[in-house]
Amino acid sequence: MPRAKDVVTKTQTPKGTVDLMPEEAWKRQFMERAFTRVFESWGYQEIRTPTFEYFNALSTGTGLELQDSMFVFQDKAGRLLALRPENTASIARVAATKLLAVPRPIRLYYIAPMFRYDEPQAGRQREFWQAGIELIGVPGAEGDAEVITVFIDDLQSVGLKDLKVDIGHVGLFLSVVKASGISWDEADILRRLIDKKDFNGLEKALVDVNCSEEFKEVFRRLPSLRGGKEVVNDVEELIGSDEFPEIKVNIENLIEAYDLLVDYGVEDSIALDLGIVRGLDYYTGTVFEAYVPEFDLAIGGGGRYDNLITEFRTSVGVAGETIHATGFSIGIDRTLIALEKQGFGFPKRPPYFMVIWLDDSLRNLTLKTSLKLRKKGFTVISEVRGRKLSNALEYANKMNVTAVLLFGKKEVEKGKIAVKNMKTGEQEEVPISDIEKHLSKISKVK
Amino acid sequence: MPRAKDVVTKTQTPKGTVDLMPEEAWKRQFMERAFTRVFESWGYQEIRTPTFEYFNALSTGTGLELQDSMFVFQDKAGRLLALRPENTASIARVAATKLLAVPRPIRLYYIAPMFRYDEPQAGRQREFWQAGIELIGVPGAEGDAEVITVFIDDLQSVGLKDLKVDIGHVGLFLSVVKASGISWDEADILRRLIDKKDFNGLEKALVDVNCSEEFKEVFRRLPSLRGGKEVVNDVEELIGSDEFPEIKVNIENLIEAYDLLVDYGVEDSIALDLGIVRGLDYYTGTVFEAYVPEFDLAIGGGGRYDNLITEFRTSVGVAGETIHATGFSIGIDRTLIALEKQGFGFPKRPPYFMVIWLDDSLRNLTLKTSLKLRKKGFTVISEVRGRKLSNALEYANKMNVTAVLLFGKKEVEKGKIAVKNMKTGEQEEVPISDIEKHLSKISKVK
Repeated sequence: MPRAKDVVTKTQTPKGTVDLMPEEAWKRQFMERAFTRVFESWGYQEIRTPTFEYFNALSTGTGLELQDSMFVFQDKAGRLLALRPENTASIARVAATKLLAVPRPIRLYYIAPMFRYDEPQAGRQREFWQAGIELIGVPGAEGDAEVITVFIDDLQSVGLKDLKVDIGHVGLFLSVVKASGISWDEADILRRLIDKKDFNGLEKALVDVNCSEEFKEVFRRLPSLRGGKEVVNDVEELIGSDEFPEIKVNIENLIEAYDLLVDYGVEDSIALDLGIVRGLDYYTGTVFEAYVPEFDLAIGGGGRYDNLITEFRTSVGVAGETIHATGFSIGIDRTLIALEKQGFGFPKRPPYFMVIWLDDSLRNLTLKTSLKLRKKGFTVISEVRGRKLSNALEYANKMNVTAVLLFGKKEVEKGKIAVKNMKTGEQEEVPISDIEKHLSKISKVK
Repeated sequence: MPRAKDVVTKTQTPKGTVDLMPEEAWKRQFMERAFTRVFESWGYQEIRTPTFEYFNALSTGTGLELQDSMFVFQDKAGRLLALRPENTASIARVAATKLLAVPRPIRLYYIAPMFRYDEPQAGRQREFWQAGIELIGVPGAEGDAEVITVFIDDLQSVGLKDLKVDIGHVGLFLSVVKASGISWDEADILRRLIDKKDFNGLEKALVDVNCSEEFKEVFRRLPSLRGGKEVVNDVEELIGSDEFPEIKVNIENLIEAYDLLVDYGVEDSIALDLGIVRGLDYYTGTVFEAYVPEFDLAIGGGGRYDNLITEFRTSVGVAGETIHATGFSIGIDRTLIALEKQGFGFPKRPPYFMVIWLDDSLRNLTLKTSLKLRKKGFTVISEVRGRKLSNALEYANKMNVTAVLLFGKKEVEKGKIAVKNMKTGEQEEVPISDIEKHLSKISKVK
């Protein structure tokens, strides 16, 4: 092992992790608040699961690729723990154990960091933040349509433009696989190639696949079936015969979801794309991903996973009904990158003020006045370094303070203080009783 | 190794971790919002450091006890990583590397989960949340007083009553140690006994300690020096002679901080306690801890750490000025326990509404109306299970929905919908154009 490379200094941070400095954290807060507002307006409630869990729980339903990317470690008894790579498995675990008596549908959301041991690049860090929802207990297309509409509402509410949500259907793909008679291994190879839109690879793979020419043609055409409602006609024409009722059910489910999305008024933001058969192994129905023209990674995605909660239940020997679920996650870091590429104007911090006492006898008045202003919602910093006035004002200037409140003996004796507007440089005497009104006025002026 | 015990089911969660269900998460959100509001009103800005870092960085200045409690793991090159056990070391690292050009003081805050491998009990989980601030670049007592006042403002702003903040001074203790001539090992033994107020243990330990009877008496009396400003007189009487100028400087610093806290008007919430010489090794000056009568663990604590940022700088060979700093962290889980023990009435969720279409031709109108209401700030859920009306209403009832909006053909033809108030059971027809006004009215009535 290359020991020399292993020596890290105290000031290094691990690859794929980021210090979010105040300007960046402010943008995150704006996004998280907007997401929260949308989630809650749709009746979703926050849930928080542990940052680390047993590997055994987190890997349920997730497939090898995600399992390989987990940060794994051991507790003192040697049990395997991992940092959560996503939140759906954990919430499914909670639904399978602690929410069985809760009336359904259950609407849950989360905003939290996730961890994957990937090769870092822009929009793909080892610690990254996701915001998402899970809608539990809705079997029909109404659930899929609601979740997709919340997804769009969320992304648009933070200011994202030209959003396109591509909608596919893993359930339809799986029912075609079953009808075709190919093996699950063959299906997995095709799924990957179709999801990547690797037409050449798909063509080559189809040579060896064991099914009729008719079904090969279906697999061949899936990645090109993209567009509006007319795509459904192509699908029906291609595979919608009465011979395969399961395929028919899935097509009808897709049509119904599409119609509901039209009723929600979001048709301009969606496209059908039967080539989307997402990677996570737990999907069973409608799946979707969001893109903007300026950025090539998906901003977020989701879909229906009707077996995952049941898998947790059967793992501990409880038989029982299927608990249907659908949800999505949004990459907060990716949303931020997309917004920046689109030149989005993030809201600025509110104006803020600085108080300085020019005489120690006025310290008490200054500090108490600053407390009062903070209680009224103003942001106020105190000069706490006892600097010369010119140095304190230079600091105020560099920090973009809107106005400095100077508590001097002469003015206070007249019941006033001096307010120095740092934008205009003007200084005026303001009665102490009028400070609030005065600062409100300054706050409104740009 | 007991392999049988190592087998965990998919539905188990690790000891010391918690699923925060919606009711709990709602209380957290309330607290975090209140903390954020206070932090920002004082001009503090959010910073977010990685959840995991190199062990080498996180262990800087922290002492063996904390190091032993870290969750440690390795990256693929064998480098030691750890989950952060607290946030101050990480922020000090940032201050030492990325904030050198930023005008001081720098005001930063964080709200984030921390991780310690302790034996779990109420208020001591392995994953727990902290809210805190760091004030960087203020050498004087103004910094200590500001940080303590923010601490009190924070805890009172969430509704905590009968708060007492005990203030000690590690710097004073260390200067007494120096003047007494005892070794650092001896000092560390005394520090622990004093901090625990273990009078018997202290008495025994003092027998073997190598210093004058005069200083033994000082160490003996430190844990009893508790109270208001009068404590300072006792301290001055005991050790305030001109012979030890460093001791004098520290006493003056403590007096000044106390006077400033009086000027801030928080004297009723503070007490001096020279027996507080907190555990974390990086403290160098004023230290403090908050308690309420109903709960025996500290709700939070903090203090001055003037060497930590410099330690990060010198670790990479950069000499330079001392970068003074002081801060605190609040245990969010402990604050919640304390509030519950005090019978605090957490704010309730806002009222929310449910829409149901009684005819498929009205689905479009129903969904679009619900979208409009959400944009206006109402929380609205849709009936998405296509249930019989009675079942849907039963769900609404169980979920504490305030009112159900029924879109029926007969009413809509008259430009109206039926609004069923779930509290009173009353149902009335409301013009579609008046829905907003009507829901606002219902929202206000209890």
